Amino acid sequence: MKRHHILFLPHNKKITVEHGEKLIRAAMEAGVHINASCGGEGVCGKCRVIIEDGKVEGGVTEKLDSEDIEKGYRQACLSGVVGDLVVRIPIDSEVDAGLLNLQKTPRRTAHIWEMNLEELKDKGLFMPPVEKKYLELPEPTLQDNLSDVTRLISFLKAQYNEHRLVVQLPVIQKISDILRKEHFKVTATLARPVHSGRKTNIIHVQTGDTTDRNYAIAVDVGTTTIYGQLVDLITGDALAQFGDYNGQISYGEDVISRIIYAGKPGGLEKLHDVVIATINKLIKKMIKKARIDPDEISTITMAGNTTMTQLLLKVNPKYIRLSPYVPASTFYPPIKAVDLGLALGDHVTALVYPAISSYVGGDIVAGVMGSGMYRTEKLTLLMDIGTNAEIVIGNKDWLACASCSAGPAFEGGGVKFGMRAGKGAIEDFSMDPITFEPMNITIGNVRPKGICGSGLIIIAATMFEMGVIDNRGKFNRDLKTPRIREIDGVYEYVLAWKHETEIDKDIALTEPDLDNLIRAKGAIYSGSITLLEEVGLKMQDIDRIYLAGGFGSYVDLEKAMVIGLLPEIDPDRIRFIGNGSLMGAKMSCLTNRIRKDVVEVTRRMTNFELSETPSFMNNYVAALFLPHTDMDQFPKLKARLERRRALQRGLANPAF
Amino acid sequence: MKRHHILFLPHNKKITVEHGEKLIRAAMEAGVHINASCGGEGVCGKCRVIIEDGKVEGGVTEKLDSEDIEKGYRQACLSGVVGDLVVRIPIDSEVDAGLLNLQKTPRRTAHIWEMNLEELKDKGLFMPPVEKKYLELPEPTLQDNLSDVTRLISFLKAQYNEHRLVVQLPVIQKISDILRKEHFKVTATLARPVHSGRKTNIIHVQTGDTTDRNYAIAVDVGTTTIYGQLVDLITGDALAQFGDYNGQISYGEDVISRIIYAGKPGGLEKLHDVVIATINKLIKKMIKKARIDPDEISTITMAGNTTMTQLLLKVNPKYIRLSPYVPASTFYPPIKAVDLGLALGDHVTALVYPAISSYVGGDIVAGVMGSGMYRTEKLTLLMDIGTNAEIVIGNKDWLACASCSAGPAFEGGGVKFGMRAGKGAIEDFSMDPITFEPMNITIGNVRPKGICGSGLIIIAATMFEMGVIDNRGKFNRDLKTPRIREIDGVYEYVLAWKHETEIDKDIALTEPDLDNLIRAKGAIYSGSITLLEEVGLKMQDIDRIYLAGGFGSYVDLEKAMVIGLLPEIDPDRIRFIGNGSLMGAKMSCLTNRIRKDVVEVTRRMTNFELSETPSFMNNYVAALFLPHTDMDQFPKLKARLERRRALQRGLANPAF
Repeated sequence: MKRHHILFLPHNKKITVEHGEKLIRAAMEAGVHINASCGGEGVCGKCRVIIEDGKVEGGVTEKLDSEDIEKGYRQACLSGVVGDLVVRIPIDSEVDAGLLNLQKTPRRTAHIWEMNLEELKDKGLFMPPVEKKYLELPEPTLQDNLSDVTRLISFLKAQYNEHRLVVQLPVIQKISDILRKEHFKVTATLARPVHSGRKTNIIHVQTGDTTDRNYAIAVDVGTTTIYGQLVDLITGDALAQFGDYNGQISYGEDVISRIIYAGKPGGLEKLHDVVIATINKLIKKMIKKARIDPDEISTITMAGNTTMTQLLLKVNPKYIRLSPYVPASTFYPPIKAVDLGLALGDHVTALVYPAISSYVGGDIVAGVMGSGMYRTEKLTLLMDIGTNAEIVIGNKDWLACASCSAGPAFEGGGVKFGMRAGKGAIEDFSMDPITFEPMNITIGNVRPKGICGSGLIIIAATMFEMGVIDNRGKFNRDLKTPRIREIDGVYEYVLAWKHETEIDKDIALTEPDLDNLIRAKGAIYSGSITLLEEVGLKMQDIDRIYLAGGFGSYVDLEKAMVIGLLPEIDPDRIRFIGNGSLMGAKMSCLTNRIRKDVVEVTRRMTNFELSETPSFMNNYVAALFLPHTDMDQFPKLKARLERRRALQRGLANPAF
Repeated sequence: MKRHHILFLPHNKKITVEHGEKLIRAAMEAGVHINASCGGEGVCGKCRVIIEDGKVEGGVTEKLDSEDIEKGYRQACLSGVVGDLVVRIPIDSEVDAGLLNLQKTPRRTAHIWEMNLEELKDKGLFMPPVEKKYLELPEPTLQDNLSDVTRLISFLKAQYNEHRLVVQLPVIQKISDILRKEHFKVTATLARPVHSGRKTNIIHVQTGDTTDRNYAIAVDVGTTTIYGQLVDLITGDALAQFGDYNGQISYGEDVISRIIYAGKPGGLEKLHDVVIATINKLIKKMIKKARIDPDEISTITMAGNTTMTQLLLKVNPKYIRLSPYVPASTFYPPIKAVDLGLALGDHVTALVYPAISSYVGGDIVAGVMGSGMYRTEKLTLLMDIGTNAEIVIGNKDWLACASCSAGPAFEGGGVKFGMRAGKGAIEDFSMDPITFEPMNITIGNVRPKGICGSGLIIIAATMFEMGVIDNRGKFNRDLKTPRIREIDGVYEYVLAWKHETEIDKDIALTEPDLDNLIRAKGAIYSGSITLLEEVGLKMQDIDRIYLAGGFGSYVDLEKAMVIGLLPEIDPDRIRFIGNGSLMGAKMSCLTNRIRKDVVEVTRRMTNFELSETPSFMNNYVAALFLPHTDMDQFPKLKARLERRRALQRGLANPAF
């Protein structure tokens, strides 16, 4: 992909972007504010810029007269970058520019991290759970008429030094014909024991040599979305990955409504059936995409929260919802995939990740295992912000976990114009410090429909640093802008006017929205603090943060620190592990080391019911501020805010 | 039951019989010959006896005139013994009496032997496979909200010192409601590992205290008949036992025709389904008879020959029938009973006895285990004569086994008037040494329909000792009796004339019948000899014989020695273990010691394909005589025959 250089003036900021990128996104990425509230459809006509050198594609609209066009004016939101550019942003005063440079920092998201097979091997963590062995057996005679199974076992011992071999019924049922198809040339699939000295299970036999084809399925069973990955066990590569809405959504959006539905007659069976149907749909798609023979799939690992796991296994989750919140079990035996209704061979065993408690599920354990945080000396904080927020803190010596009742603010819930991170969601934002005009960037560059979680954090952080809201999330009543208004006693900031939106309504951020955001981030931050305090540590002791879940890939790390969702830490020490649940499931397919370790990990993972932990409430109340009552926990922000206030007090000093 | 004493004259033989016994059976038991060919319905009118003292019930027929009746004549076959008696048998000469006393020995069958629970305990062999533990768990609170499964496991550890506990999915699915029914008072059923150090499986949870109720099912899956036993695991008693025809009979009488049927489309599934249906029928009957709650059945063990086992497990047995006779497997993993279609709880694991080869199946292994022959120093010969004949020889140090293609003579097959041991089968026999008139005793005391296996042996042995047939089974052509005749070149002995039978045909024993019998007994005896020779031993080295199978309970031991089916051995050293397969299955339900030992036993059990063992053919040919070419192997019989011949030569010497 061709890349182009852009110089923004008067900011004197440079950036390199991919061919075809819209100019307004390039500006946002460079930390350059351009007024823009319509999301990129040219409706508001505010994002006028001057192309001083180079050429753009498009950007000429009826909002620009011929004289403007002649001068090089274009609408940034409709201008595609097709070559190197020098772009000038028309600004009212030099002061603005100074403020702007202070204000806007490039969006910084977490680095993606995932362990691969080579790394596993290098680290000595590679213990393949399933392996194939090819054999050319001598054909039986009257002098040597061992049973087919005994013949296979004998030669696995003789040729591959395999011991303690057992078979399951499906192998006995098919072995005789399989052996006789190609003169006793056969491939046996061995499922290794997790603990040495236990039995190795011959789970499958196939005619001829199939040792070059061995696959696994990893599944993240999310409340909303289910993700599946088809893993090549020989290379460690993901050959296909698909996601789809959990079919259970029709029976309740969230965990609680699913639990209630499961309590109705036939409800549990129905929810079990539809989640299996969703997984089967994904398996089918992956098989088609990767063009493999389903018979070559040797294993499946699944991870989900405790309720999803119980529904998957047809275990009624009703007591999860009722105090004292007791799950039926936190670990699950290996189960025949066909017994669960999975569309896989009868040789496939389904492994399901163990949970810690009713609200810290197998998805989190999978994240802990997949991230490897349980193997390192470094004090790590793992956060998975999904429908709920779960946190794990610890290292190779100890692990503490908790579920935080953050509420759904980060997924767009409890926010007046909140929405999921889909087309039309405001996902990035900047504000003119003088006019308080917004620069909205939406997913898909279309007119705004609402605000997604990562956008919400950026908006709140920007407003807070700019003094538009105070540390309790209240709008500064003194600012002169029509965008801040009071309706029915509720203050709000209008991000986009009715005519600029897709929904034919003013899209605004309200004080109750900010309140919900603060409660959400407060719950997570104070949860983390509480876990740390229980073992005598502080936020500052944290070496590394792992973010899991879809939210983690989009969140602007610095902005998340501004609102106090994340502690202040070098962003390089924050890693995004993607879908931790899926990653852990995949890792379990690749190496038995994970299954071996997970028993010990779940045993030493202490679960805190925060509501039962005395210090939690104080920590929570202290965290209900932006970023926190204790500003010493956010020294960099504290310094920035002090500089900003100084700047505002003495606008005369342009040195800042 | 009241018993009565009878003195038979002139033989001067005494016997005690139960009230109501027919006089003719009492005579047979006492070793007293009375001519009788109609089986006991008074038709032939030959069994006239004189009641010299005491009274009988019945016995007066139109065949007796009033003068006879006055003198005390009765028909023995219709006379019921209701008090002490002195009975005179009208005999032509004193010589006859002398011969008679020489000839007839009381029928001697094997002693029944079975190990019970106390004996197991005394011998240190008691390792219960399933045990119940009662717990009163503390109810969960917010401070103590372990999962239900973890709670159960923790307290099993704390209160009963149970370790390495695992659960299966059905327990997870039901535990939450079970615990909450009676305030966390619960009984857990534990399935013990066979090898110490392995996992103990919590297979079931029940509300309240059910520790006094724990049952098992043992099943012998026979080709013809299936037997089930309901075992009380606390007392070791059989609470109910039923047998029923294997439903597969409609699809083929014998193993070979079943294998052929299984090869047809849908055939395997059909045969699997009907055998499961038969077992389920038996389970239902046993549950009803014993009045137990099916939920209290904790385990099931099944044993059958290799083909029956493969059909039971839906494993196509087709290669069993084809050279080189390879079974799919000789051992089978534990299987969920519900997966097989068994009407038992989802917590029940079905154990299936391992086999040795295609023709030495799990039924024989079960017999070896049940009999305990693998634990003793004594050299033991185990014989199971059923549809086929299997033999095992050995002791605690070694075991050799073989299947003998005996043919179905002992089950009435290959015998012109052969039949199964049912009503109307001639099961006992004696012969007048002068007139060669028969004394037939039929099952049910009805007119004869045919000859069953045990009857066949008695008839052949009697005729041989009497010189009616020679050692090749050929009739003495010089005897003057209308009962020996030649029809279409085939010699035969008429046991009952047409008008005396149920089938309106003369019932005869032919030379081809005798030939088949000799081949059958020859195959078994030479099989045993061959196994012994392979380890450098002789028949005389055998300490003990165990007879298994229905046939074993009826066979007249001394007569079996006369024809050379059994070696000459003190009958007290022959034990009848009944249905060895069922016994072994029951033993496996009672103690894991059997399952622990069986692996080692099957490993050291050497299977001989007799057809591939060079010495077998010579041994077989040598055994195709009555009792054998080498009379020194039958010294007692040899002496008796010599005395008899001397007697015949010099009838003048009445000392014999």
